[in-house]
Amino acid sequence: MLRKNYIYAPGPVTVPPQVLAATAKPIIHHRSADFDPLFKKVNEGLKYIFQTSNPVVTLASSGTGAMEAAIISTASPGDHIISLEGGKFGERWGQIAQAFGFDADRVKIDWGTGPDPNLVADLLKKRPDTKAVYIELCETSTGALSDVKAIAEVTRNTGTLLIVDAVSGLCAEEMRTDEWGADLVGAGSQKGIMLPPGLAFVSISPKAQEAIKQSKSAKFYFSLAKYLKSLAENTTPFTPPVSLIFGLEVSLDMIQAEGIENVWKRHARLAGGARNAMKAIGCSLYPRHPSNTVTAINVPDDIDGGKVVKTMREMGFTIAGGQDHLKGKIFRFATLGWHNEFDALTIIGAVEQMLAKLGHKFERGAGMTAASEYFETNR
Amino acid sequence: MLRKNYIYAPGPVTVPPQVLAATAKPIIHHRSADFDPLFKKVNEGLKYIFQTSNPVVTLASSGTGAMEAAIISTASPGDHIISLEGGKFGERWGQIAQAFGFDADRVKIDWGTGPDPNLVADLLKKRPDTKAVYIELCETSTGALSDVKAIAEVTRNTGTLLIVDAVSGLCAEEMRTDEWGADLVGAGSQKGIMLPPGLAFVSISPKAQEAIKQSKSAKFYFSLAKYLKSLAENTTPFTPPVSLIFGLEVSLDMIQAEGIENVWKRHARLAGGARNAMKAIGCSLYPRHPSNTVTAINVPDDIDGGKVVKTMREMGFTIAGGQDHLKGKIFRFATLGWHNEFDALTIIGAVEQMLAKLGHKFERGAGMTAASEYFETNR
Repeated sequence: MLRKNYIYAPGPVTVPPQVLAATAKPIIHHRSADFDPLFKKVNEGLKYIFQTSNPVVTLASSGTGAMEAAIISTASPGDHIISLEGGKFGERWGQIAQAFGFDADRVKIDWGTGPDPNLVADLLKKRPDTKAVYIELCETSTGALSDVKAIAEVTRNTGTLLIVDAVSGLCAEEMRTDEWGADLVGAGSQKGIMLPPGLAFVSISPKAQEAIKQSKSAKFYFSLAKYLKSLAENTTPFTPPVSLIFGLEVSLDMIQAEGIENVWKRHARLAGGARNAMKAIGCSLYPRHPSNTVTAINVPDDIDGGKVVKTMREMGFTIAGGQDHLKGKIFRFATLGWHNEFDALTIIGAVEQMLAKLGHKFERGAGMTAASEYFETNR
Repeated sequence: MLRKNYIYAPGPVTVPPQVLAATAKPIIHHRSADFDPLFKKVNEGLKYIFQTSNPVVTLASSGTGAMEAAIISTASPGDHIISLEGGKFGERWGQIAQAFGFDADRVKIDWGTGPDPNLVADLLKKRPDTKAVYIELCETSTGALSDVKAIAEVTRNTGTLLIVDAVSGLCAEEMRTDEWGADLVGAGSQKGIMLPPGLAFVSISPKAQEAIKQSKSAKFYFSLAKYLKSLAENTTPFTPPVSLIFGLEVSLDMIQAEGIENVWKRHARLAGGARNAMKAIGCSLYPRHPSNTVTAINVPDDIDGGKVVKTMREMGFTIAGGQDHLKGKIFRFATLGWHNEFDALTIIGAVEQMLAKLGHKFERGAGMTAASEYFETNR
């Protein structure tokens, strides 16, 4: 068979060719009259996809850099923070808080779930001095979605900031930053924004801007105060990855042309089809609160979970396995970014082939059929 | 005239089209069998251009990130460090050291000079407990070169680390990391390495690796311990900018084909021609210790220095002005990266036109002629 490479990992995602082409344009200087209108335009586009009228700053880093910036720019050593950890990424933010000397209450929640808003309310009642609560929009390692809206209702009229990791979830999940009241929302370029990795973004509410002024934690490159100051002058404090910003212009144009609510709906429909397909071939979902960003599936009992990712890889498909205690127990694929129904059928067809190769007993074609029917009845 | 854009700023530089084309290749996943041989190859190429057999780690950040990583990964709050500051970038590293609570002796040296090795020896004699000395290979804001070799002779048999900012200078200046004994050398992608901005690199000596194990400063994303651990497994701790790494493969191939010593010589010849040209048209050099990375020229008395960069810009040329107290006093241009003699003649011709437009009195063509003759007699 003609070999093609298919990326269905929860990021980096497939980058549309028109975006790739834009990233290859000749470099312009970032402090120049050519760059100024481009940066102004992408900053407006970023506000749109974050659904905010507040500043969204652009960093040269991975998504972890965006989260580190949000965390260390708003608190001081000794400050109490609450990190709700139901997977690898939730754990990472708690680790950052500890590395910078915050008094971190690292609350373990069941993997595959989002945090209970009542739990957040109880924790804040006990510690009303909490500087910030960290949650995931989508916890990429488990495919679980948080109810950001409900949790923001708990934090929004308190002195506590809500910091949302939307690194994988932005553009895939409904995320109404201002309407819900999320204070800092972090995102990465290589997920729903459909770019190569290398850029990260943070939206910053007025309440967060106030906290940034007070923060005394050690920082320089990830000081959001510097990025806010530069953004007010339509620039960045350090040299930005200009070629990725060329690409960002094109990908934001694509998202704006489709409309962010339609982009969310498309992700919901594709993930809904994928979930139905998996059930139709005897595979259960891992998360209790499933996201539309990434679909995490329990490896069926009749196959060797250690072979799933490798077999997909041999077929040309990049998907993800489980991490830590989920290694060999789940596999994860994403119809994230530049995907339509036919792309969803492609990955479902490939998963069927892989399961058949590994000896799973199921009705061949039932997954693709279920997805196809779902797409027809859910327009 | 047909308008073209010419970048002769000291970074970001013109990226060769074959490198741009490589950056537009379809994304591959960074944890995959496709990425592994690519990353192995570029890591060997990086060691070659740094002239080291020690690890060179790759960060997703600007050059400032590389320097922050080198600084905060090797010291602990309260540690004594010496920052030799003869320009904007030297000052930046002192600021980082202070931001992270180090006992920073921020030594001012004359702008336009590199630090006197005897001064470094005296400072270390007074404070043999100094954790690290920070110097510039090229101080981009002034165009001054440091004698890294001589300073490394002072530090190499002591307990003090030598941290070298080679962000703009790497590939433009002779830099023999291992032979001279530089412990941490930082570089950025958008200078002599001929890539778009977005990657940064740090080489790490065994002595620096030992210091990294002891360091207690607050860090996460910029913890070099994490990058060293990942590099040993041929990977990165956080998602790398894959498309820039595609480009890096091509630019490293180009540098290796030419040979790093020839690349240094080419930069020396082009900068030498540019310096001769400027003198021939009545312009003096700003730095007493001129680098080959960027040529900094005193604005002649008979023109308005505030108009230099703008006039060049109108002609399609991006160069840099002076910063802080040098604003309007100097201008800077660089034949950095993918440049040959004809590219040097181009910028010299453009500078002549600009000076004539602004009313400087000089013999037209004398600069281009001086450069051309210099190139012929310096092969």
